[in-house]
Amino acid sequence: MKKIVISPSTELYIGPNVLQSDDFSKLCAQHKVIVVADEAIKDLYAVELATKLRAQLLTIPNGERAKSLETAQNLINQLFQAGCNRDTLLIAMGGGVTTDLVGFVASIYMRGAPLILIPTTLLAMVDASIGGKTGIDTSSGKNLLGTIYYPKAIFADLNLLQTLSEQQWGCGLAEILKMGLIHAPLLWQKATQNSQDPDLILQAILAKIEIVERDPLELGVRRILNFGHTIGHALERVANYELSHGEAVAMGSVAEAHLSMSLGYLSKQQFELIEAVYRPFPFQWPPPYQRSELLSAMAFDKKRAKGEIRFVLIDRIGHAIPFEGAYCRAVTPVELESSLDWMEQWKSPR
Amino acid sequence: MKKIVISPSTELYIGPNVLQSDDFSKLCAQHKVIVVADEAIKDLYAVELATKLRAQLLTIPNGERAKSLETAQNLINQLFQAGCNRDTLLIAMGGGVTTDLVGFVASIYMRGAPLILIPTTLLAMVDASIGGKTGIDTSSGKNLLGTIYYPKAIFADLNLLQTLSEQQWGCGLAEILKMGLIHAPLLWQKATQNSQDPDLILQAILAKIEIVERDPLELGVRRILNFGHTIGHALERVANYELSHGEAVAMGSVAEAHLSMSLGYLSKQQFELIEAVYRPFPFQWPPPYQRSELLSAMAFDKKRAKGEIRFVLIDRIGHAIPFEGAYCRAVTPVELESSLDWMEQWKSPR
Repeated sequence: MKKIVISPSTELYIGPNVLQSDDFSKLCAQHKVIVVADEAIKDLYAVELATKLRAQLLTIPNGERAKSLETAQNLINQLFQAGCNRDTLLIAMGGGVTTDLVGFVASIYMRGAPLILIPTTLLAMVDASIGGKTGIDTSSGKNLLGTIYYPKAIFADLNLLQTLSEQQWGCGLAEILKMGLIHAPLLWQKATQNSQDPDLILQAILAKIEIVERDPLELGVRRILNFGHTIGHALERVANYELSHGEAVAMGSVAEAHLSMSLGYLSKQQFELIEAVYRPFPFQWPPPYQRSELLSAMAFDKKRAKGEIRFVLIDRIGHAIPFEGAYCRAVTPVELESSLDWMEQWKSPR
Repeated sequence: MKKIVISPSTELYIGPNVLQSDDFSKLCAQHKVIVVADEAIKDLYAVELATKLRAQLLTIPNGERAKSLETAQNLINQLFQAGCNRDTLLIAMGGGVTTDLVGFVASIYMRGAPLILIPTTLLAMVDASIGGKTGIDTSSGKNLLGTIYYPKAIFADLNLLQTLSEQQWGCGLAEILKMGLIHAPLLWQKATQNSQDPDLILQAILAKIEIVERDPLELGVRRILNFGHTIGHALERVANYELSHGEAVAMGSVAEAHLSMSLGYLSKQQFELIEAVYRPFPFQWPPPYQRSELLSAMAFDKKRAKGEIRFVLIDRIGHAIPFEGAYCRAVTPVELESSLDWMEQWKSPR
């Protein structure tokens, strides 16, 4: 087991069996505890955990649609009914939907209740649980409401990964690769050579922590983490969230690498290396959509300013372009065209 | 005009005509701007302001009932419709209900939009606008949802106070007196001797800033600001919010001074001084209520822990009791009884 303290004040525990550790028991013993999980995780792990902690278990629906203000409000009402106050510890056990949603609720419940995250997917371990972002989707787009709120602790128990599907592994690995593409060339190499290396998860987490600690409020360099997300979020929307976030961002990453090439920043050779790594992923591609829908979905991205669509771009594997501290640049629909053409080709054979 | 920088990063401008200053124009010129006000302030000031700034004006209903998640959601939908992004400047113009509500919305809109507060009541100038607390009421109680979120700037334009009713002045003055009771004996003296002293507002703001900067997250000393609020919030609830927040806290302050006396901390003589100052206030007292309702409303206070009802108490004018850093103590319903009896006597003749 490794313990890392993330600024400003989150303890991250990672390893097999961290949920069996004394650290976990001690943190929970200080509070009245509520465990929140979706229906799938309830059956797999959460009933057992809540029983052990003698905590009440509250459930949310499965899937991205649960990340709504409506679910948040239901959860809040249940917390009031259970007599929770601002010292009640909320434990979010699940994937990114659960950690984002419960994080949001904890951040606004009585102006902030203590929070522990137990990510159960590889993607949530290396991405959603790190960095304090919480999020709620609205009918206008993904994560358009949210807060920056730091959990007391994150318990990344590697044992929980045993029940992941191949597709869920792929989503997590795609996120690790994205981190490699924008910031960590060695991580990219490692991940492409041996995706089973147990050290990979920790390295990816450390890379994200480094970026977040340099720019917690996302005023500059933290924006590079949004690589793949301008197209990724738009794909999720046009697919009506039947595509998972991980799949959408994986596809968005390749498409935005293509855009980096078509705008003249990335060499054709490097793009082809990237494409070849993502090609065999066991992903479902989005159903047919109108190009105009995709463009208008992009227009609601949070990076947008003055009506422009903005992209994080790379000029080589392992390096996002700083653009004088903005870390993204505006791209016109015309400039985008060839990458959207390519994307439609790329997905069709699958 | 005075400018004060409040930690971590809020500029406070106070004086007559601060809304006519270059500082205000310059801050607004950097952003797309939305002005939010209630129906009353719309007619008095907000239409004029929005016109001058060429900003869109959004309105919320008058009164405490507007501080709901429903109003917040309506406002958020209107912001999406207006194409607002995370660089859109939200200006909240109004009393504490408006600054609390719009502050909450700004704090969660795209994980935080820039915010300017223009308090239009004396109470909002010296209390709600200072310290970064935002709040939403739920059916379970006041401010049970909220965030800590700092505005870019606060413009306390003393000209706006000209339209206040006598009752609204009283609410602000009662808050200044409360600040005096818990922390600032000189402020109490000044306020009781000459409530028209123009320096009083600035002194009250500075006293609040000092407390908030010492304890931004309300882990200790900041709790003393809740003096008068355990009973005050409960009174608002049992009166179904037909009593204003200022009136309820004024009454709560005298009642909690009585409690401080009945528990043996405050001398009878000092209590009588306090009671005599508040007695002539032009306040409406709450309609008849059941004592059990009042007690169960108190049980939902955020200061509550382990099912106890907690109170900030004073041992002399100008000094809240530290209670070893907790700054509040549990009081049993039996201990509370004589103060609740007294309160019912006190309010009946009015």
